Amino acid sequence: MPESENNVEMLLSNKVSWLSDSGPEDDIAISSRIRLARNLEGIPFTISADPERLANTMSAIQVAIRKAGCFNLPLDFNLIKLKELDRKVLLERRLISREFVAERYGAGIVVNRDEDIGIMINEEDHIRIQALKPGFQLREVWEAINAFDDNLGKELPYAFDNDLGYLTSCPTNVGTGMRASVMLHLPGLVLSGQIYAVTQGVSKLGLAVRGFFGEGTENLGNLYQISNQSTLGESEEQIVDRLSTVIRQIIGHEKNARQALLEKKQEFLLNHVGRAYGILRHAYIISSEETLNSLSALRMGVDMGMFSSVDIHTVNELFVIIQPAHLQKYAKKELVSEERDVFRAALVREKLRTIDKNA
Amino acid sequence: MPESENNVEMLLSNKVSWLSDSGPEDDIAISSRIRLARNLEGIPFTISADPERLANTMSAIQVAIRKAGCFNLPLDFNLIKLKELDRKVLLERRLISREFVAERYGAGIVVNRDEDIGIMINEEDHIRIQALKPGFQLREVWEAINAFDDNLGKELPYAFDNDLGYLTSCPTNVGTGMRASVMLHLPGLVLSGQIYAVTQGVSKLGLAVRGFFGEGTENLGNLYQISNQSTLGESEEQIVDRLSTVIRQIIGHEKNARQALLEKKQEFLLNHVGRAYGILRHAYIISSEETLNSLSALRMGVDMGMFSSVDIHTVNELFVIIQPAHLQKYAKKELVSEERDVFRAALVREKLRTIDKNA
Repeated sequence: MPESENNVEMLLSNKVSWLSDSGPEDDIAISSRIRLARNLEGIPFTISADPERLANTMSAIQVAIRKAGCFNLPLDFNLIKLKELDRKVLLERRLISREFVAERYGAGIVVNRDEDIGIMINEEDHIRIQALKPGFQLREVWEAINAFDDNLGKELPYAFDNDLGYLTSCPTNVGTGMRASVMLHLPGLVLSGQIYAVTQGVSKLGLAVRGFFGEGTENLGNLYQISNQSTLGESEEQIVDRLSTVIRQIIGHEKNARQALLEKKQEFLLNHVGRAYGILRHAYIISSEETLNSLSALRMGVDMGMFSSVDIHTVNELFVIIQPAHLQKYAKKELVSEERDVFRAALVREKLRTIDKNA
Repeated sequence: MPESENNVEMLLSNKVSWLSDSGPEDDIAISSRIRLARNLEGIPFTISADPERLANTMSAIQVAIRKAGCFNLPLDFNLIKLKELDRKVLLERRLISREFVAERYGAGIVVNRDEDIGIMINEEDHIRIQALKPGFQLREVWEAINAFDDNLGKELPYAFDNDLGYLTSCPTNVGTGMRASVMLHLPGLVLSGQIYAVTQGVSKLGLAVRGFFGEGTENLGNLYQISNQSTLGESEEQIVDRLSTVIRQIIGHEKNARQALLEKKQEFLLNHVGRAYGILRHAYIISSEETLNSLSALRMGVDMGMFSSVDIHTVNELFVIIQPAHLQKYAKKELVSEERDVFRAALVREKLRTIDKNA
């Protein structure tokens, strides 16, 4: 098996650390994530480079990464050497962007074995470093990625302008080149009808709201990713602080909403969670959308003590592994949509088999 | 507590024998039922009698019933002495007709303690004897009710015409005065889309098709009551034989339909049953309609060996006790619709608590 392909198998046999490990406020905050866009001085942006140039740039970056020694157990992927299904697996694990699923020469990634830090090479920018931690810990992610970036910067000449900051392919990233985000699970705000007001408020503060699976997927699993929009005029610390303040407020709102539901609409809540659990435990055909929304209800129920012998990290992991490419990797064959719905139901039943609902 | 009211409590503490006991083909045939309409010679039909006359007729019939000694453990009910809720309980247990729920003087019933045989007094006819047995055993029901009727006829002068047969208030019952029916559970024919053709065919044979809860309720729980329409021109035995032949065919069709689903659409079937079970076990709010349809799926699953430690009689009983009046008797207070949905869910969870689904 070629190295890149072998590495995909290795990822699949691992747990995703930012989903499986505990973190602060992880009853509501799934994960914190920062990515930095960097480009190499004197080399044309990816978009205007020919395949040979891209291949050379990738090699140079890979050598520099090894030299910088900032990974514990790096896994290398040359994307053109992967089957499309494997690239989709990387997308579903949030290691690459949607653009990287298409066949592209000179496109690669290097990631730590536990997937907490990685680099996309020759995406929109030459380098996109991405770091993730479970729960709400943007500050800690920033410290980790900043140290990583400093190390790498010693080996690679970043394109940097004293007035503008880091230069990027798209003007919207110029400056810090940073996008910081927190993935929040907000079923309480959704069930109590407050979510629209909250996301509207967040937008007015100049922050972006997206779903777990990108723009327009906010209705899936009640997962909301809140991130900064602008990269100019603020330092990285200021961006992290401003975003953290808003996140802390949303977490407070969500806690209040759950508490109010528990106090004033207990039957409604128990019914919502109980039915979702019943479906997940006993369905034999289930769509991706119904699974995500049922997992959302289950996750809230777990947080509210309705279940024993399950933790929310099992649920977090399911958000990822019930996606189409993961299912087909587990099944070891291509599955059409109807077959995936059957296989997905079996996987969910198996994963939740040992969970008991408290009476 | 007055006697009639006390007797309602006694019924509620009993199991309904025709639902709880085993019978031939009871995976598909819930119960077999025959009623005979009889009137007393020389006394005006109920519809044209004043309250005093009705009261006198009722007393005379009650005395004759005791004298005939055809009940093991008779329970007497004077309906005017019952609260409306208690009359609804009797309706839900199929011991009285919908007309008897309204306040009526001189209306009564006498039933055996295990509810397998009973008499409505002063309904449309002076006397309506009804006998029930679990499963498909029309012939046995006929033998039981015939003996019972012969005994009673020795004590009461029935209105009888040598040409027409038994005289009844409504001309459609003249002759045998008999309506025989079998309640069938037909989820296989419904799921495989064959039910319409079957019920159309049954109608063409001059038989009637109704739902468990009367005309127009065929969609509830996939329960279908097939009965004879005509009471003239055939002997009781001929009616029973003709109806039995048709029922036997429908049971065969239903078995084939279930087998075909199991062979050709196994996932669909497992999913249908599994989801219903998940909902029944874990919902906290559930309507009557959803409960009946979920119980129907569960009942089929039990028959197909998908569950351990449950028998279909538990499910049969639930068909009756999840109805509004029963729920309110168990709760010992009036419940509005929303409260019933909560109480119903709790009752179903409790009753199915010990059922395990086979892996």
